[in-house]
Amino acid sequence: MGSGRRAGRDVAVVGAGKTPFGAFADKDLRTLAVTAGTKALENARTGPDAIEAFYLGNFAGPQFTSQNHLAPWISTALGMSGGIPSTRFEDACASSGSAFFHAFMAVSAGIYDVVMVAGVEKMTCQSTARVTEILAGAGDSDTEVRVGSTFPSLFAMIARRHMHDFGTKREHLSAVAVKNHENGALNPDAQMRKAITLEQAMNARPIAEPLNLYDCSLISDGAAAVILCAADRAHEFSDKPVKVLGVGQASDFVALDRKADITTFPALRAAAHQAYAMAGVGAKQIEFAELHDCFTIAEIVAMEDLGFVERGRGGFFTFEGGTRRGGAMPINASGGLKSKGHPVGATGVAQICDVVQQLRGEAGERQLKRHSLGLAQNLGGSGATCVVTILGRD
Amino acid sequence: MGSGRRAGRDVAVVGAGKTPFGAFADKDLRTLAVTAGTKALENARTGPDAIEAFYLGNFAGPQFTSQNHLAPWISTALGMSGGIPSTRFEDACASSGSAFFHAFMAVSAGIYDVVMVAGVEKMTCQSTARVTEILAGAGDSDTEVRVGSTFPSLFAMIARRHMHDFGTKREHLSAVAVKNHENGALNPDAQMRKAITLEQAMNARPIAEPLNLYDCSLISDGAAAVILCAADRAHEFSDKPVKVLGVGQASDFVALDRKADITTFPALRAAAHQAYAMAGVGAKQIEFAELHDCFTIAEIVAMEDLGFVERGRGGFFTFEGGTRRGGAMPINASGGLKSKGHPVGATGVAQICDVVQQLRGEAGERQLKRHSLGLAQNLGGSGATCVVTILGRD
Repeated sequence: MGSGRRAGRDVAVVGAGKTPFGAFADKDLRTLAVTAGTKALENARTGPDAIEAFYLGNFAGPQFTSQNHLAPWISTALGMSGGIPSTRFEDACASSGSAFFHAFMAVSAGIYDVVMVAGVEKMTCQSTARVTEILAGAGDSDTEVRVGSTFPSLFAMIARRHMHDFGTKREHLSAVAVKNHENGALNPDAQMRKAITLEQAMNARPIAEPLNLYDCSLISDGAAAVILCAADRAHEFSDKPVKVLGVGQASDFVALDRKADITTFPALRAAAHQAYAMAGVGAKQIEFAELHDCFTIAEIVAMEDLGFVERGRGGFFTFEGGTRRGGAMPINASGGLKSKGHPVGATGVAQICDVVQQLRGEAGERQLKRHSLGLAQNLGGSGATCVVTILGRD
Repeated sequence: MGSGRRAGRDVAVVGAGKTPFGAFADKDLRTLAVTAGTKALENARTGPDAIEAFYLGNFAGPQFTSQNHLAPWISTALGMSGGIPSTRFEDACASSGSAFFHAFMAVSAGIYDVVMVAGVEKMTCQSTARVTEILAGAGDSDTEVRVGSTFPSLFAMIARRHMHDFGTKREHLSAVAVKNHENGALNPDAQMRKAITLEQAMNARPIAEPLNLYDCSLISDGAAAVILCAADRAHEFSDKPVKVLGVGQASDFVALDRKADITTFPALRAAAHQAYAMAGVGAKQIEFAELHDCFTIAEIVAMEDLGFVERGRGGFFTFEGGTRRGGAMPINASGGLKSKGHPVGATGVAQICDVVQQLRGEAGERQLKRHSLGLAQNLGGSGATCVVTILGRD
């Protein structure tokens, strides 16, 4: 499984930049991406001429905004040379995680020394109904979409089955939301900076039983970007380079009904296995993580598939406070997709920016005590794509 | 320009497969891609388990069919392991050329030994008006699309300017169409197997003056796939491996009005420069080519930017028969996008399949006399992305 994948030299993140996440009627997709890209370049103390290839993650820009061919549209606006390849990567909500994976492999293998990976999505220009319809395109149109399934309903089935198999409770799901809102309230770039109580979380209006409003991530506009370079050149760009220690990307059936067991994601396990093997570390050594909490149950499944807790224990562990900032395994100190926001194509790179911020000790009120080894996990659809990235302080 | 790009070991195409191009109401996008992928695997005498990464080129599947997240949707249907990365690449009509570029670089750099690159588009399920609107998304929504520009009108401006600057004539454009239809009539997989006269070509109904119906490529369904592997393992898969000698990908402004001179494409020139340099050959050594004739004028500009003829001479050269199968530089012996069809996301890989077929001497009635060194050129938008690939007999 993935035995063919080989990495070469060390790679560092030497620049990171994000826009705030939210609803920005006055900012189009390109403006968001250019803002994040410019911040990343500034953070790397460099300019567009240094970039040898542009990797863009975007899920559904053409459907949200009717603009397609997004990669050169953005790279030229960032002032990059036309001589470089500009390419858009799409893997549903794991689009920019996938762009990062391919960019890392290219730099590690020696194809390029310095590249930019950006992610962007502009969603709030469409109605919630249309957003839900566009997002449903990441499911299987032959089966799921045809019968009216949307992602809240698919993850509701996962949650229900997890409850049935492992005794996970409603309050466990809500505990994920409470914890992520607690963190997001401290994040100046988060879309929903509002702490909530367990009672509020449990009694919100139902979306797809057992999931309610507070179990679902947000509809957002936003962008994020990082500069990757060969580690031996990192000093040219940053005093605080962060090493990319391991990456993994794997895939699975798009349709949930093709999975033998819907409470575990084989693609997540495979991507984690690859990333751990490349980094030479195990789950127990990871100190903190940004996980793909598109729904509260997704965070629970992810912490189990990553090996942070035993299978079936994710909800209990969360309810007991294990994933809070002061817990044994802090998860989504940024606020996660739940509170920070989820501009889908931006999320993978934004998670990496959040891990980088922690590793550099620049997370302000949200700064974690142990911050030398972090993990980011980006999911596409109901588990058909997963990308896992492990980063460490240099 | 592109100096950062480095390739490593030799890479071979060891399998190629295509669907016919046309309007296939009974075949969905996935069926087309799986058909082409299966043919490519059979041609490489192997199965899906051999594939270490899946690269999919697709321009606008989500808009044409509402299915997104296409890469795992297709790779799982081909029977590939979930442990591998499955990723969609989008660069407008150069989407699968770009997927091929990234796949080649990955195998050359030693990341993988064996990968599949596929391209697919399903277009005929939408009305011509809606197809034109979706394709317009590869232009700039802030300027071109806002004022109602579509690709026929953009390329009409290029044609008009080329006529003004270089004396190119209406009959030169028509000669491109006549020659491509002559070739396509002999191609069993072509969408429009019909030879036309110069008179027919010149007197067809206008689309966007000076372009008429026969200056425009077709709206098509279709897919193509190739298997790439490290050259030292090629013998495991094929008795007729084809070497990938050079590749280049470059970008430029999406909006035509940002170009200093609209009768030449800097991204095309940059990609060609990279591919020639990597292959260690010049334009004069190329024996035949598949060029991106989305419009007749695009073939003329491409042959000039690639250095096959002097600037401004492409129309004259074509009219004099220089690009016919028996000419000095045969172009689009397959029939080109004009006659073969143009399922946009499939086109880049389909061109490579056509070059491979010639190099292997398997082109039947269209077989060229000189067939040891061929070139494929894939264009996105009005020149914002270009990919050039040079292939040779082993």
